[in-house]
Amino acid sequence: MARWRSGSEARLAEAALDLFIDQGYEQTTVSEIAGRAGLTERTFYRYFADKREVLFGGRDGLERELVHVIAGLPASIAPLDAIAVALDHVATHYFADRGPVALKRQAVIEANPDLQERELLKMASLAAAIGRTLHDRGVSEPAASLAAEAGVAVFRIAFSQWVALGNERTLSDLIRSTLADLRTVTGGT
Amino acid sequence: MARWRSGSEARLAEAALDLFIDQGYEQTTVSEIAGRAGLTERTFYRYFADKREVLFGGRDGLERELVHVIAGLPASIAPLDAIAVALDHVATHYFADRGPVALKRQAVIEANPDLQERELLKMASLAAAIGRTLHDRGVSEPAASLAAEAGVAVFRIAFSQWVALGNERTLSDLIRSTLADLRTVTGGT
Repeated sequence: MARWRSGSEARLAEAALDLFIDQGYEQTTVSEIAGRAGLTERTFYRYFADKREVLFGGRDGLERELVHVIAGLPASIAPLDAIAVALDHVATHYFADRGPVALKRQAVIEANPDLQERELLKMASLAAAIGRTLHDRGVSEPAASLAAEAGVAVFRIAFSQWVALGNERTLSDLIRSTLADLRTVTGGT
Repeated sequence: MARWRSGSEARLAEAALDLFIDQGYEQTTVSEIAGRAGLTERTFYRYFADKREVLFGGRDGLERELVHVIAGLPASIAPLDAIAVALDHVATHYFADRGPVALKRQAVIEANPDLQERELLKMASLAAAIGRTLHDRGVSEPAASLAAEAGVAVFRIAFSQWVALGNERTLSDLIRSTLADLRTVTGGT
């Protein structure tokens, strides 16, 4: 889910996702993607290093955005609350108009174990970045890492519910209720 | 960290870990491992499919053990408490005499990005298995997955503290205090 900086980039990404779904990720070539988008391979490589980057390039943007929001909050906010604010921000801004693209992307990833691994590693890197940001703001360890890991688990679970067939709830709403579930699950002894 | 079913297996694993640390994981051959252990390559392959399995083979045992303990607990126990019981069980039984081996293993993994990825994926598979076990015991989703993800995060963080240089606390103790930290972090809004 790259951020669509231009019409060509969006067309290439859409063509790629459609081909990945129709004929499989492994089987799809950059030449076919460019052809379907009515553009040249050279244009494809202006936006993406390879076909995998169509799926994973934009996630760095997500990480940057989450870290940026958390770093800008007052240090007095509890770590998991800071993460909740950041997740709500990306849900309402970053992902607001990405529903259909996110759904296709998820379908491609779920059909390919290698891509699933890549996605897990991206999420781990996201948790590490959030943990470092919290720690830099004065949150001690292991609280910073624990909040980050729990927050990313909430995001992943809410996200998969958001893109599930038949879902009509917003990502923001799903994140809020999953966070509440987390607090319940970790609440009583 | 395979379970040492025999003297030969333990000698091979120890030789492998020492070579991985001394000369690097990538550079070490099965022939060298067998030689250092005073055994044949054929004996090596009786216990391990390849050199990577010296590092990751035993983790399936860990998953089996955690799942087994959780599945055997009364359904009335809250999900995170069930995980806490299972983690304490593996800390006191499975890892009790594995401290020095775990420390060497961690050093090898931290020196190699590919092995770090493999370890992350193993932990993700562990969380998925625990989530499924909780769900089978009647815990609804997303509570089952959230408890599993949080529990595995606690284990990973406590484990890395356990094998850290200079640590004198037991794994069981570290798991208990990391779980308490998790409850604090997720506690107040």
